[in-house]
Amino acid sequence: MDLKTLHKRHVLTPWVAQGGHEAPVVVRGEGVWLYDREGRRYLDLSAGLVAVNLGHAHPKLVRAIAEQAARLAYAAPGLFHDGRALLGKALSDLAPWPEGGRVFFTPSGTEANEDALKFVRHLTGRPKVLAAYRSFHGATHASASLTGENRRWPAEPGVPGVVHFFAPYPYRSPFFTEDPKEEAWRALEHLERVLLHEDPQRVAAIFLEPVVGSNGVIVYPEGYLEGVRALCDRHGILLVFDEVMTGFGRVGAAFAAERFRVVPDLITFAKGVTSAYVPLGGVLVREGLARFFDEHPLPTGHTYSGHPLAVAAGLAALEAYREEGIFARVRSLEGFFREALASLVAQHPLVGEVRGLGAFYALELVKDRKSKEPLSPWHAPPSPPMRALLRALLGEGVYLMAKHNVLLVAPPLTIREEEFLEGVERLSRALWQVEVEAL
Amino acid sequence: MDLKTLHKRHVLTPWVAQGGHEAPVVVRGEGVWLYDREGRRYLDLSAGLVAVNLGHAHPKLVRAIAEQAARLAYAAPGLFHDGRALLGKALSDLAPWPEGGRVFFTPSGTEANEDALKFVRHLTGRPKVLAAYRSFHGATHASASLTGENRRWPAEPGVPGVVHFFAPYPYRSPFFTEDPKEEAWRALEHLERVLLHEDPQRVAAIFLEPVVGSNGVIVYPEGYLEGVRALCDRHGILLVFDEVMTGFGRVGAAFAAERFRVVPDLITFAKGVTSAYVPLGGVLVREGLARFFDEHPLPTGHTYSGHPLAVAAGLAALEAYREEGIFARVRSLEGFFREALASLVAQHPLVGEVRGLGAFYALELVKDRKSKEPLSPWHAPPSPPMRALLRALLGEGVYLMAKHNVLLVAPPLTIREEEFLEGVERLSRALWQVEVEAL
Repeated sequence: MDLKTLHKRHVLTPWVAQGGHEAPVVVRGEGVWLYDREGRRYLDLSAGLVAVNLGHAHPKLVRAIAEQAARLAYAAPGLFHDGRALLGKALSDLAPWPEGGRVFFTPSGTEANEDALKFVRHLTGRPKVLAAYRSFHGATHASASLTGENRRWPAEPGVPGVVHFFAPYPYRSPFFTEDPKEEAWRALEHLERVLLHEDPQRVAAIFLEPVVGSNGVIVYPEGYLEGVRALCDRHGILLVFDEVMTGFGRVGAAFAAERFRVVPDLITFAKGVTSAYVPLGGVLVREGLARFFDEHPLPTGHTYSGHPLAVAAGLAALEAYREEGIFARVRSLEGFFREALASLVAQHPLVGEVRGLGAFYALELVKDRKSKEPLSPWHAPPSPPMRALLRALLGEGVYLMAKHNVLLVAPPLTIREEEFLEGVERLSRALWQVEVEAL
Repeated sequence: MDLKTLHKRHVLTPWVAQGGHEAPVVVRGEGVWLYDREGRRYLDLSAGLVAVNLGHAHPKLVRAIAEQAARLAYAAPGLFHDGRALLGKALSDLAPWPEGGRVFFTPSGTEANEDALKFVRHLTGRPKVLAAYRSFHGATHASASLTGENRRWPAEPGVPGVVHFFAPYPYRSPFFTEDPKEEAWRALEHLERVLLHEDPQRVAAIFLEPVVGSNGVIVYPEGYLEGVRALCDRHGILLVFDEVMTGFGRVGAAFAAERFRVVPDLITFAKGVTSAYVPLGGVLVREGLARFFDEHPLPTGHTYSGHPLAVAAGLAALEAYREEGIFARVRSLEGFFREALASLVAQHPLVGEVRGLGAFYALELVKDRKSKEPLSPWHAPPSPPMRALLRALLGEGVYLMAKHNVLLVAPPLTIREEEFLEGVERLSRALWQVEVEAL
């Protein structure tokens, strides 16, 4: 039986109805390219799910994984382990705290958010947490409860005590303004009003993606993150940055916290920490808070916490980021990325807006630029033109992560400039196909 | 700074207060042995956390991991992938359903249980689920809500709709009997009574470890699992076996479902599927149910679902199990394991009972055999004699998983007979030390 039939018959694919789902069978990767069995290649323009920051088959990671597999693939998390200690130290050094921090390792970003939720409740003794609408924090039940869109709904009823608020979204302002400064100010007023109605003394933490990820790479207007930090300080609320997508160079710094100079109390991470080569995530906790767990039992544990193969991949990835100057490279290419994508707005009426920073961009697609009607409705399966676009993209040899009416352009951070331009060219051809059909 | 200090300073260890936690720094593994930096070796008598079924540094797995890392470590789960298709097929072949099944891959066992919970609610449209006291299903919030012991508490308030019942525990019967047959019968009557009070028509599923795992390797008396299956059938309730520990040879069969000839509707797995070399878990759903998702969107998704490196490790592990006849080997050695451990009961008053099957055993430790008072109280940090025992075990060069007053003896399934006897000998010496001190 061929592989595609086997896949459909025996593997369940996330989020979609299995019946109509089609995709190429990828078998190999190199740099920014994925290859199927017939040698057809696809430009991995979303780095998987904004994860493969160092591209495919990076020699340093391949070697580190092979060596660690031969030395020690697994040991129980109650034992100490050399790689785990070294990666803990390296992550503490990258964290934005002069006091340093400690890491609790998980196998994934969603488990990191689950554990962060336990930590903030135990650290503060407070029951509630706030999270933003239009956020994604994971699909396990508590992380889904934090999530501010329809990937939460199938996990309901979820964990109690999560309250959602609206964060800035300048392209479609929830605050009735078109001025970014006003957007930031009104969003903070709204958040304060929500806190007032929930009792800030009952709020343990605010969970926030410092740049909204899969829901559209929304970069908050200046002053917003600082304002959230100030609100947290005023009320003794902890600030948790979900940096699962933004961490490890995606925004041109180790963490978005560094880029924006806003310091959270906890950081959750995954994906880029190993360039997704081995499943790994974790919660970074600043030292002053982590000390609480010297006397109080840590309220969680996982078989794969601090998995030796995973931490070895993490150490190799951090070394590659450093040796190749990846974070600085992203900053220096930011203008180039943005300009290349801006050309799509000029050429394609379907593209309502291009936004983002670092190597992290969204194309928000609309039926009409004036009305801003989404090309595919929110919280519903892809519309026919969106489906046509995704087919056209694969036809042009481009893999892209899409969510409702948004395309995520978030390539491996090692992408060469000519490869990126080729990606934009292919993307442009796919958009053109759909625009021609729609005429 | 030395590795132990770095570890304590920057890595949070599961479940314990960090202050007093001590452990060796392991750096290498081979077969059933773990080695620290100074070359001191420890017999891994719990296979990590009942996970490293094929022992450390198994050449077939080491090779498969190195090869896959070089070929393709990661691809988004929306794409198809050769290894994912092949492992899906292989797991369907191992599953106890003539109709076959489909797999949703996760990075861990706890995420598998989270997703299984969503599946059964969506498949049945019913809100509640039942799970047993003294079970462990994971530490993320919904899996913790299913869990029937104190590792649930720090995740409370958890997800609503989970109801706990008592399952058989012959050594400390919740049903006021010392007769195993009566224990099974009374446990079923109790379960039926709980269902009656909850309304069986509102119950989506019963989650059950077919052999209780970390809470003491409790093998249910004959007739119990069959009775649960019959109750489920009568009321249209789905039966979910959590085979995270029991799967892949631990009880001398692919799954406990096969060993006991009781067929669940869903099976969650992890650990043994890759011998823990790469984090991987999943939910097996029988085909007749999985078809529901042809028309209905799958209500979940994870970045690391069907992770290419992980599925490659899974394929290699399944091949090793088959080529080396591991499942049959465990069945043939079961009598030997049991007899060797039974000698400890004869020699050590601390050992209240040895129980188990396959390569999966518990020593339940008591202060006094008559009163059965646990050596360490349930749901509390280890008592001084328990701590002394764990220290003595490390001193004797044995690593063991312990939970309250229970030691888990669950070595790699590849352990040689003389290695197992050496482990029992070391265990005996450690018990002796504590008994001498207690006198």
